[in-house]
Amino acid sequence: MQPILNFDSLTAHLLSIPSRRKRVAVACPHDSHTAEAVEAAINEGFADFILVGRGDIIDALPVVKQHPERISTIAIDDTDEAARKAVALVRAGEADVLMKGLLNTDNLLRAVLDKENGLLPRGRVLSHITASQIPGHDRLLFFSDAAVIPFPTPEQRAAQVGYMAEVVRAFGIECPRIALIHCSEKSSPKFPVTADYAALKEQAAAEAFGCATIDGPMDVKTACDPHSGAVKGIVSPINGQADAMLMPDIESGNVFYKTLTCFAGATNAGMLVGTSAPVVLPSRSDSTRSKLYSLAMACLTAG
Amino acid sequence: MQPILNFDSLTAHLLSIPSRRKRVAVACPHDSHTAEAVEAAINEGFADFILVGRGDIIDALPVVKQHPERISTIAIDDTDEAARKAVALVRAGEADVLMKGLLNTDNLLRAVLDKENGLLPRGRVLSHITASQIPGHDRLLFFSDAAVIPFPTPEQRAAQVGYMAEVVRAFGIECPRIALIHCSEKSSPKFPVTADYAALKEQAAAEAFGCATIDGPMDVKTACDPHSGAVKGIVSPINGQADAMLMPDIESGNVFYKTLTCFAGATNAGMLVGTSAPVVLPSRSDSTRSKLYSLAMACLTAG
Repeated sequence: MQPILNFDSLTAHLLSIPSRRKRVAVACPHDSHTAEAVEAAINEGFADFILVGRGDIIDALPVVKQHPERISTIAIDDTDEAARKAVALVRAGEADVLMKGLLNTDNLLRAVLDKENGLLPRGRVLSHITASQIPGHDRLLFFSDAAVIPFPTPEQRAAQVGYMAEVVRAFGIECPRIALIHCSEKSSPKFPVTADYAALKEQAAAEAFGCATIDGPMDVKTACDPHSGAVKGIVSPINGQADAMLMPDIESGNVFYKTLTCFAGATNAGMLVGTSAPVVLPSRSDSTRSKLYSLAMACLTAG
Repeated sequence: MQPILNFDSLTAHLLSIPSRRKRVAVACPHDSHTAEAVEAAINEGFADFILVGRGDIIDALPVVKQHPERISTIAIDDTDEAARKAVALVRAGEADVLMKGLLNTDNLLRAVLDKENGLLPRGRVLSHITASQIPGHDRLLFFSDAAVIPFPTPEQRAAQVGYMAEVVRAFGIECPRIALIHCSEKSSPKFPVTADYAALKEQAAAEAFGCATIDGPMDVKTACDPHSGAVKGIVSPINGQADAMLMPDIESGNVFYKTLTCFAGATNAGMLVGTSAPVVLPSRSDSTRSKLYSLAMACLTAG
């Protein structure tokens, strides 16, 4: 498989293997934002849908009427019940991906995290991965975690690195380069996260993450600009060509995410990981393209 | 005074008031990077220089030979002694700005922070401010702190806000809008920094920072994109027009700085604040323009 280096290649790749067309269960697609994302994905052709929610709303959606062969609907008026049903469809193998519509994230997560009937296997860490397409940059850039874990423990960081390695491999990059991001280039007691990074490098050396090049601490520019390391005299196997970046915490992750979209013209896709199937939680402020690519990323990585 | 919204306007403004031409003491200008910055500032015409360091090197610099009326030299071979002398010139009022040349930052800081003979008044907080010129953005964006304080205390955050307010005012913006940056939009015990932000807003309401609009927590996009708040239903007096941003910690600050330069084509200027005179610490990886604008920013804000 050729590495997928941008979102157009991602959707083209999904279309090139129609036998892999995934089914997305959507909880409460009651708003125009969610309907737009469903319509865009149907038009692209890489996913089928099961819409779970208010019958009067979903049966009236133009896209449902136009593509009855691609979209099925389940009428459930109660929001929480609809969320549980969408989760149940994924658990039963009738859907490959879960997507949030018009309900509070907390309500959907309650169904996702339910110990008996949810999607998070016991002992697994729930986290989030963003893929960013940045104008002028030569590849998609993955990072974790801008959305779920505030201040990761060492175990959570290891899970985040493992998830990123898996997702980047699904994009056709067999040995991902993963940079451990920090302002400092040295481990220091002043910055506790750097001790976690040292441990991650040891785990990587013991092949805990499969084929992957994991190095740091290093800053964003050293990770992503091949010229920067040379100027600063930094020698790293990442070599300014990071495929993925581990952020020190959610505060840095969010600054990175928002700076890319606000000032660098980036388009981002994102999904929850750690669950038995990818979960897409679009934000209302996401563009339709961003929601579409989040669905595509989830479909690519779904089992 | 018209607001200064980009670096060209900054140097033009400095040239428009020749009586204010500042004097910069440079410790150990022994490398081509520092010499380039001095030459660029001399050519722009907004500063004079006192170069303190190895006589054989500095007297051989072409710019020194070409502009004897603008540059004086003091020959001192020992690096630490040269640093102390450059600091002493500032203390004595013979220079308005201090600039680092080819010596370790720690060595210069030792002279700057010396209790008897340094530049940090007792009880003052040492911090750092960056000004960023981002292609397509309508103003310079100031932020703190990407370089000095790892995890600020509440008192240090208040000092950072105060310094930003002063510096932005020196750029002709009488009532700066300062955003308190966070991934969350609400105060929460999960994120201790948000309690500090609440305290800062109370201090701002009591006019501790003079005329300034201070609000948060909010993310970078809500702070800097006038459309973003509307989509998310966020009402803030910042209104997507932040002049300055307080970063939660140095990790987020560094991610912001490096993302802007690596992916948004930004040109940054920076300086230490809290000292009795601005201190410019160029990094070798900074462009000549970046060093020039750091000097200009320091000259604008020097007393």
